[in-house]
Amino acid sequence: MNAEIICVGTELLLGNIVNTNAAFISERLSAIGIDCYRQCVVGDNMKRLTEQLAESSSRCDIIILSGGLGPTEDDMTKEGVAEFCKLPLVEDKASRKAIEEYFEKKGKKPTENNWKQAMIPKGARAVENPNGTAPGIIVETKSCKYILLPGPPGELEPMFENSIIPYLKGLCDRILFSRTVKIVGIGESSVETQIKDMIDAQTNPTIATYAKTGEVHIRVTASASDEKEAKKLVKPVVKELKERFANNIYTTEEEVTLERSVIDLLLSNKMTISTVESCTGGLLSGRIVGESGASDVFKCGLTTYSNKSKRKLVGVKKGTLDKYGAVSRQVAAEMVKGGASLTKSDVCVSVTGIAGPTGGTEDKPVGLVYIGCNVKGKVTVKEFHFSGNRNKIRSLSVTNALILARECILEYISKVNFG
Amino acid sequence: MNAEIICVGTELLLGNIVNTNAAFISERLSAIGIDCYRQCVVGDNMKRLTEQLAESSSRCDIIILSGGLGPTEDDMTKEGVAEFCKLPLVEDKASRKAIEEYFEKKGKKPTENNWKQAMIPKGARAVENPNGTAPGIIVETKSCKYILLPGPPGELEPMFENSIIPYLKGLCDRILFSRTVKIVGIGESSVETQIKDMIDAQTNPTIATYAKTGEVHIRVTASASDEKEAKKLVKPVVKELKERFANNIYTTEEEVTLERSVIDLLLSNKMTISTVESCTGGLLSGRIVGESGASDVFKCGLTTYSNKSKRKLVGVKKGTLDKYGAVSRQVAAEMVKGGASLTKSDVCVSVTGIAGPTGGTEDKPVGLVYIGCNVKGKVTVKEFHFSGNRNKIRSLSVTNALILARECILEYISKVNFG
Repeated sequence: MNAEIICVGTELLLGNIVNTNAAFISERLSAIGIDCYRQCVVGDNMKRLTEQLAESSSRCDIIILSGGLGPTEDDMTKEGVAEFCKLPLVEDKASRKAIEEYFEKKGKKPTENNWKQAMIPKGARAVENPNGTAPGIIVETKSCKYILLPGPPGELEPMFENSIIPYLKGLCDRILFSRTVKIVGIGESSVETQIKDMIDAQTNPTIATYAKTGEVHIRVTASASDEKEAKKLVKPVVKELKERFANNIYTTEEEVTLERSVIDLLLSNKMTISTVESCTGGLLSGRIVGESGASDVFKCGLTTYSNKSKRKLVGVKKGTLDKYGAVSRQVAAEMVKGGASLTKSDVCVSVTGIAGPTGGTEDKPVGLVYIGCNVKGKVTVKEFHFSGNRNKIRSLSVTNALILARECILEYISKVNFG
Repeated sequence: MNAEIICVGTELLLGNIVNTNAAFISERLSAIGIDCYRQCVVGDNMKRLTEQLAESSSRCDIIILSGGLGPTEDDMTKEGVAEFCKLPLVEDKASRKAIEEYFEKKGKKPTENNWKQAMIPKGARAVENPNGTAPGIIVETKSCKYILLPGPPGELEPMFENSIIPYLKGLCDRILFSRTVKIVGIGESSVETQIKDMIDAQTNPTIATYAKTGEVHIRVTASASDEKEAKKLVKPVVKELKERFANNIYTTEEEVTLERSVIDLLLSNKMTISTVESCTGGLLSGRIVGESGASDVFKCGLTTYSNKSKRKLVGVKKGTLDKYGAVSRQVAAEMVKGGASLTKSDVCVSVTGIAGPTGGTEDKPVGLVYIGCNVKGKVTVKEFHFSGNRNKIRSLSVTNALILARECILEYISKVNFG
């Protein structure tokens, strides 16, 4: 079974927005074992859309289209597919009703062109869109299936998860089941070396590694006639990986992020956390607070960007700043000592570094970052040398701060339990 | 002149990375007046790459390819283009030397397969890559020009700006010159209504509007035989827009961001800023600190996520929290009062809101956000109702906090100067 993705929208061709839909759909297709050999983007243009449909439908089983389902004249994805499949557009009663209810809930009145959104190609099925007015549409022809999705990610993503994935799974005679083993603290090439024997021997399940910022993910995917059998195939491989990577694994669940795993670790040990940031400027606390429910563990975050605020807020000593500079092991340590004492949190994490592009010297080049962690008084500081632009260095700093926090918390817990 | 973009990489088809290169290239092409009618993505697969080259070259003048120029066997973009154009690969001496020097600078030795990167199709020209080992390549045939770029954005983007844009400009007999008028505080449809007469009358320069998160950008683009003439055409239109939108315009420079404009405003008035954040969790301070040189104006940022930290750090009163709740006009006001007094900064901005998905009630639904701003003691609080998921609400909150800060600072300055 193979698919192509066609994203429709002039705003993509003008570079006004980044195509996150293509990445999202591709990632989900890959997770259920549907190959995707091509993504393409065309503008709101009937000729080029139907040309692309002709090309794509000649070589694949499923075409997933996103965008162009809105109420305006520009929106023509549905019309293009209907024309290409030679199907008239007819009103779908359920969609009309859903649009009525959607506007009623918002206390607004639909305009005349909103009813256009209730029209679907004859014989097609409408897919409910609880987050907007454009229903999704599935058109099945002999040679190809067309799945039309609304463009806004806030509508497309839940619709894909809740309605399209079950539909696609129903098309496959075998099912796929995956587990993602997420690893920190080891580089991708080293991970690959450590599992080379497993990769060489793989058939079913398959084993694939992916490098993310500061992380390596191993996805183990089995194909079987039912979920129970697939899970049985995946289980011993995940077990083997757990033995090889032990505490470097922070989760085996696809949807658990690194920050979520740190929050869960804190929750289950009834601990709290705070942050003291310099070059990351609040992105570390922003990432923790990005998880719903972070309020149970996150006490507060301080962005002490200036030397004065480092001194005043978290009591970094003037002598330390003068002697070692703001980007130093010593200042990272004083930041977490002061932060923990100010916020009375069990864990405090600090970041101080040179994100560039200016500010680097021979001794302290751009990319030098110190990350500190204080767990109930025990302070650890690590030195990092990152490369990349300002954003990349800041993003690597945030990830590594979470990794260090996790390591230090685990160490503390194991001492308390066995020490 | 029209172009197509082909991005090569299996990691794009697996959804492991988001295709920011396509957006970047499209945006830059549009800025110099080259139409881009299609973007597509193929994997590291010779057959599908050459098929795509055949399709694309039959309908456009320029094909821009990114990715697949690395040293491994998987990388085959260059080989694909050479095969399609029936050109042998030959070693480019300057590229070999650049690779040698690149490794020397890093204190590393190139491996045998790195020399593969110095091979280019016969008659092609290599484009210098100061940020990596893969040179860019320009292949010119009678019918089409092929521009091959390395995949990592940190290499592709500077190469495109510094070498490819000048090359492409040289191909066009006319030049394009643009100014971007960036507007805040007015919605897109209202902006469009206010300039409908200008849009209807446009010929040269053209006028196009783009909605960004919380902002509207109007791009004015003139085509002329030289830059001087193009600038002369753009000038009166920008002047007219300045008259219509006055203080709602924060810049007319493409590269100036909203946070940059706030920093510049603070710098030129010798003022400092601090932040007190709840639901945005540090993203506001993170965005300010994201600008190089923010240290001259940014004093410190506080993420007071818990009620306790709101009380303890910035002195929000228990009574206020009990009576009005953490998400309230009153708490937003006390956050900026306490923040300014703690940090001794001239400007303090606060954000408190319900980003969801949980935590909303009938009275205080998800999306309700209060943003406060204190400029030298004068406190303003605005209430917002945002829609979207947690990330979208947080991102809209950050943008609107910057907008409010800008408004309040401008108001203060005008009072001091004229008041």
